[in-house]
Amino acid sequence: MSEDLMLRLELLSLQDRYVAAIDNDRIEEWPGFFTEECLYEIVSRENEEAGLPAPLIHCDSGGMLRDRVLSLRHANIYERPAYRHMLSGMEWREEGGEYAVSTSYVVVNTSIEGASTIYQAGRYLDRVVRTEGGLRFREKRCIYDTLRVQTLLAFPI
Amino acid sequence: MSEDLMLRLELLSLQDRYVAAIDNDRIEEWPGFFTEECLYEIVSRENEEAGLPAPLIHCDSGGMLRDRVLSLRHANIYERPAYRHMLSGMEWREEGGEYAVSTSYVVVNTSIEGASTIYQAGRYLDRVVRTEGGLRFREKRCIYDTLRVQTLLAFPI
Amino acid sequence: MSEDLMLRLELLSLQDRYVAAIDNDRIEEWPGFFTEECLYEIVSRENEEAGLPAPLIHCDSGGMLRDRVLSLRHANIYERPAYRHMLSGMEWREEGGEYAVSTSYVVVNTSIEGASTIYQAGRYLDRVVRTEGGLRFREKRCIYDTLRVQTLLAFPI
Repeated sequence: MSEDLMLRLELLSLQDRYVAAIDNDRIEEWPGFFTEECLYEIVSRENEEAGLPAPLIHCDSGGMLRDRVLSLRHANIYERPAYRHMLSGMEWREEGGEYAVSTSYVVVNTSIEGASTIYQAGRYLDRVVRTEGGLRFREKRCIYDTLRVQTLLAFPI
Repeated sequence: MSEDLMLRLELLSLQDRYVAAIDNDRIEEWPGFFTEECLYEIVSRENEEAGLPAPLIHCDSGGMLRDRVLSLRHANIYERPAYRHMLSGMEWREEGGEYAVSTSYVVVNTSIEGASTIYQAGRYLDRVVRTEGGLRFREKRCIYDTLRVQTLLAFPI
Repeated sequence: MSEDLMLRLELLSLQDRYVAAIDNDRIEEWPGFFTEECLYEIVSRENEEAGLPAPLIHCDSGGMLRDRVLSLRHANIYERPAYRHMLSGMEWREEGGEYAVSTSYVVVNTSIEGASTIYQAGRYLDRVVRTEGGLRFREKRCIYDTLRVQTLLAFPI
């Protein structure tokens, strides 16, 4: 009945280190938070609840994640965002030898002009596995509430 | 002198699971975070500091909390909000066999049109007790800083 | 390889209690989070990345921190802010007997008119040491992303 609090803390640490890598402009580290066979998706809450696939981003291997990082670093078409991910409301349960984890997020972005606004609110639905190198995401699905057009969406959430 | 860090973690877990139930549209679970004899209030910071009662919401039993959930589910007059509670700045102390806990919150709401904005900022002032089923709120008072008219205020914070 | 999770929790507690003192209008406690020899700075990300000094605030002793609190309490020229600091993405490493800690922050402010908006987003770069009284900041540098004019900047972040 009582929760394994140290496991909660370890999962919180994983989430914290994941968003820190993105927010502090070290996206080269981003693929390393996933297992090699993995799923990364960004999906609207509307589509998720309607059971429609149509994710805005869909990557299903470590190679695709690394390709995305290369594109982001070498393409000039993307404005470099200045994100700050705030996290809260983490829940988890063990399921078939892995952890099903849900965490609310609010991403604040600061534009080139210097104004900080809420860019996206939503929820991570993750499947986390223990590997030799520590906890990794086998699946990370970002279900966003916000429905305004997401011009920076090529960047990881 | 040194803090009981595991108790801090257990209190953080309680707060996280509480906001997750609200934010993930499972308000039926909301009354279960309280003891049967309880107090739930939403009060403006202005009134709180002036010692005025006049809470916007006041429930003083589990029955009242459950009634509120039923109303919210069956009434059509409320726009279903899409909240994301961010939490921070937790402080606690033991006092008379229970825990006095203060936690800052910022609630982000996404409207039907899909824009995410700050809906309410404030502070929880809680009294937490240990029961057979784990930690529960004997008292949760939401003291909000934000003074704009709160059209969605019928929904739990 | 594996993280000292209890130390993470202790560092999170330090950050939480630090922002709670500011957000709950107890800035008299603010200098007590620092060692007597210390550095407190607020610097724009632009200047930080360009290696320019030019901090907006620079204090390098406990005395300067206490002076600042006195000024804030006795001067009438400052609008008293109503901040709520949200924290996330904490990373730390041990370095030369102290802890180098990075934490993202988003500060929400509620104006006298009662509207809550994002006032500043950024990142703490801290050096934390263990003292007889627990963990203290030997250095806290607030590197802000937001570039709009900061009219309330005299208040601690």
